[in-house]
Amino acid sequence: MSIMLDDVAVTTRLRPTAAVAAMRAALLAAHRGELVAPPRVHAGGLTFTAGRLPGRWYGYRAYDTHVGGQQVVAVHAEPTGDLAGVAVGTALGAFRTGALGAVAADVLARRDATTVGVIGTGRQAWTQLWALSAVRQLSDVAIYSRTPQRQSALVDRVQTELRIPARAVQTAHEAVAARDIVVLATSSPTPVLDASWLAPGSAVTTVGPKQIDRAEFGLDLPMRAQLIVTDSLPQLRAYDPPALLTNNAAVALGAIIAGDHPGRTNPDAITVYASVGLAGTEPYLLADLLAL
Amino acid sequence: MSIMLDDVAVTTRLRPTAAVAAMRAALLAAHRGELVAPPRVHAGGLTFTAGRLPGRWYGYRAYDTHVGGQQVVAVHAEPTGDLAGVAVGTALGAFRTGALGAVAADVLARRDATTVGVIGTGRQAWTQLWALSAVRQLSDVAIYSRTPQRQSALVDRVQTELRIPARAVQTAHEAVAARDIVVLATSSPTPVLDASWLAPGSAVTTVGPKQIDRAEFGLDLPMRAQLIVTDSLPQLRAYDPPALLTNNAAVALGAIIAGDHPGRTNPDAITVYASVGLAGTEPYLLADLLAL
Repeated sequence: MSIMLDDVAVTTRLRPTAAVAAMRAALLAAHRGELVAPPRVHAGGLTFTAGRLPGRWYGYRAYDTHVGGQQVVAVHAEPTGDLAGVAVGTALGAFRTGALGAVAADVLARRDATTVGVIGTGRQAWTQLWALSAVRQLSDVAIYSRTPQRQSALVDRVQTELRIPARAVQTAHEAVAARDIVVLATSSPTPVLDASWLAPGSAVTTVGPKQIDRAEFGLDLPMRAQLIVTDSLPQLRAYDPPALLTNNAAVALGAIIAGDHPGRTNPDAITVYASVGLAGTEPYLLADLLAL
Repeated sequence: MSIMLDDVAVTTRLRPTAAVAAMRAALLAAHRGELVAPPRVHAGGLTFTAGRLPGRWYGYRAYDTHVGGQQVVAVHAEPTGDLAGVAVGTALGAFRTGALGAVAADVLARRDATTVGVIGTGRQAWTQLWALSAVRQLSDVAIYSRTPQRQSALVDRVQTELRIPARAVQTAHEAVAARDIVVLATSSPTPVLDASWLAPGSAVTTVGPKQIDRAEFGLDLPMRAQLIVTDSLPQLRAYDPPALLTNNAAVALGAIIAGDHPGRTNPDAITVYASVGLAGTEPYLLADLLAL
């Protein structure tokens, strides 16, 4: 019988180091054309995203866009096609996004990066920090939110579960200024920062809205950045309305990992990682968790 | 946690009477436009068929067309969207097809039908007989196959599990002649019967190939039939190459159940039920099994 994992089981089993390694491998496989991850398809209000690592596994993510209920991620082992396991809920997707963000930070942030600023206190903010803990020795996490209760809850969680010094700050400016790594993880349709607040050499991740007329940052961010990177160029280019980044030449994170692009070449450069959620990475992470 | 059913669990839990009642309701719901069951979609070698009974449940079937591995049928309860259960394997689909065939036989065969002839001894032959046992009091099942070992195994199984008199016959002609209900459940690309063998008043079900140049029957079958019925007109019409039946005016089984078409009006009429596998019926059957 196949394994069924709910959000608690996924949360218990996933470790940041393994998740980050899996997503690094996925980005490389996608860059090399080994990971089959076609555009999502729709039927009857449902969305299906397929993924396949030929000879190893195939799978998909399925979810309803109207009801907003539990998502299903399934992976089958090749060559038998036997169902290896199913993840039910929403945790796997958030950890996947966090792990991709940590791969980006590992690649883009300076080697000596130790400080993080976060705007946002939701699940995405948590999984970014969870995964970041695997790629840098963090000494100080500054968290800003308009909701003090959620802000102190996330500070507590980072201190308790990740054992990383964390504190609440009173302004977005404080969360962003003089930080090595900056994470924007809001649902804000309007800018939450001024790019002039950023320190030279900082690596910014944007997980939230990033479309023209609906973005958690303004055009000043891509204009100030020397390097803009994404986990999926095709998905970023398919945004409609377009991504607020498309006039810049974005680089595939997988290309930097593969050594096909130099990545950061200047310690004072500001980098932006535009997280779009590379297709096929949720089955990939589940396959990795199930040791396929 | 949601329920996961493998083929053994599906086989143990499904009862023919309940399965036939569920498929009857599904055919009616599809005819009335209540069952949302759009055409299947494809991505990365996977096929997804969605189904939804608004306000009750939504779900899908997912399978790989290359590897041919385990299929997954999933249903979520509305309005929460919580995953109610998953069926893994291939049993549910075969029972679904059997139950649809029994609804067709119940609607199309004469009230006094008691004899059945079957060509084919695979899983589809078994599930047709399994479901037929719920709609008519069968007194004699004649089974023909080119493989004697499989033939005697099916005879034994019908006698043991369904407690219906069954016997092996030596020719396809014997399996078809003077039968009230005839089931073609082969994978044959060429005709396995001559329509002239059929007795007046018989109801024929074809589960196997039914396309031009690849059909388990010849054009003589639809030509001899007074009534041709299918579980899905759109799916039958979408066959490419076309179905060997399309020059005849096929009738939706759901329309007869709803009373929008009279169905059999002459006790001597020969009817043909072309089984195509109405989309959405696998989630429907699983939802019924899970009492959604």
